[in-house]
Amino acid sequence: MDIGSLIFDDMDQIDFTGPFEVLSRLPGSSYRVYGVTGAPVRDIRGLTIVPDAAIADAPPLDVLHVPGGQGVDVLMENEEVLAWLRKQSGNVVLSVCTGALLLGAAGLLTGRRATTHWASVHLLPELGAEVVDQRVVVDGDWVFAAGVTAGIDAALTLAARLHGDEVAQGIQLHMQYAPEPPFDAGTPETAPAVVLEAARADMAAVTRRRLTTIRRIVSGHAHP
Amino acid sequence: MDIGSLIFDDMDQIDFTGPFEVLSRLPGSSYRVYGVTGAPVRDIRGLTIVPDAAIADAPPLDVLHVPGGQGVDVLMENEEVLAWLRKQSGNVVLSVCTGALLLGAAGLLTGRRATTHWASVHLLPELGAEVVDQRVVVDGDWVFAAGVTAGIDAALTLAARLHGDEVAQGIQLHMQYAPEPPFDAGTPETAPAVVLEAARADMAAVTRRRLTTIRRIVSGHAHP
Repeated sequence: MDIGSLIFDDMDQIDFTGPFEVLSRLPGSSYRVYGVTGAPVRDIRGLTIVPDAAIADAPPLDVLHVPGGQGVDVLMENEEVLAWLRKQSGNVVLSVCTGALLLGAAGLLTGRRATTHWASVHLLPELGAEVVDQRVVVDGDWVFAAGVTAGIDAALTLAARLHGDEVAQGIQLHMQYAPEPPFDAGTPETAPAVVLEAARADMAAVTRRRLTTIRRIVSGHAHP
Repeated sequence: MDIGSLIFDDMDQIDFTGPFEVLSRLPGSSYRVYGVTGAPVRDIRGLTIVPDAAIADAPPLDVLHVPGGQGVDVLMENEEVLAWLRKQSGNVVLSVCTGALLLGAAGLLTGRRATTHWASVHLLPELGAEVVDQRVVVDGDWVFAAGVTAGIDAALTLAARLHGDEVAQGIQLHMQYAPEPPFDAGTPETAPAVVLEAARADMAAVTRRRLTTIRRIVSGHAHP
């Protein structure tokens, strides 16, 4: 089984590294990491990761993994990337965080039940998707994770679907994944109001720009 | 504040990338990643990460982060790395997974309350540490995480200690860290017996070799 992740500048690295930790341990599979080119990629906080190859050199993938982060905004209008996503999304797809927006920009979310990062969830219907208010959403052969760390839960869900519960549980045990967050602040519903307000203010400009981009893309689809 | 992670070949990448996701978002701080040399590092599953610099070029760190993984076994007898850890561990230390064994090999765990990956926890007393059966153990200015993904919980705990609860909660909300593992199999106590047995068998050789290494190191300390 060929598993491949798309990585790109200004992604949120754990959208990628969380699922990598899980899926790279699936038996009998090859996991490779693809950049838009073969050059190293810098995540939004400055972590440098080296892809195994450029997307142009990827074989047909059995599992396509698309992480998110601010870098999706540029890629949503990169025709080479969008064409590659269309070509590679015929089997199993794992969408993490705002990776869903990128898949949507490729026209792949029409009619899908999906989710994404809490701050971008209102953008999904613009791309034809139906939002499901769950941390992990399974829609046929597609698995969608909500924001960032939800990718770990989604990847374990996918591992179980592909190889059975015991394989997924073995990976979970290796990862000692029995989380105990020190606070209950991981969702807009549970975060203290002052923390939520600051986060929303922080993201307002990005989210507004993203809506403009999405509307431009969608109107482009309608009137080519 | 200067934050630095040690990265090395055959580490378990999420021991590093989990805390990076949290600590790289602390306000007013610089986070850099150090390799034994400046060369790219390959994690145990093949992910290639580029350090910002070699350990020899690191400034005095305010926060030292040490991940784990099978690569610690070689580093436990690397005098350059051990000397660097001794020099850099005077302020705040975040130990994740079997990073604790490396710190122990440097002679830094004597009398400390600590934890590590569940499969190596019996090795800590050999290095002079007292094992505490918690996912995150705080001992003065040191924070210890149990295995792998416990680094995320420990890093959030550390973020709150350094910058207050609201900063840590803001980072948690950004990461949408409200975990929902699909199984309750993340510890030896909760994993199905067959899964635990397979994991133990898988790790038996590594763990035995590790014990031999540690006894050699400790006897070297005693009779220099």
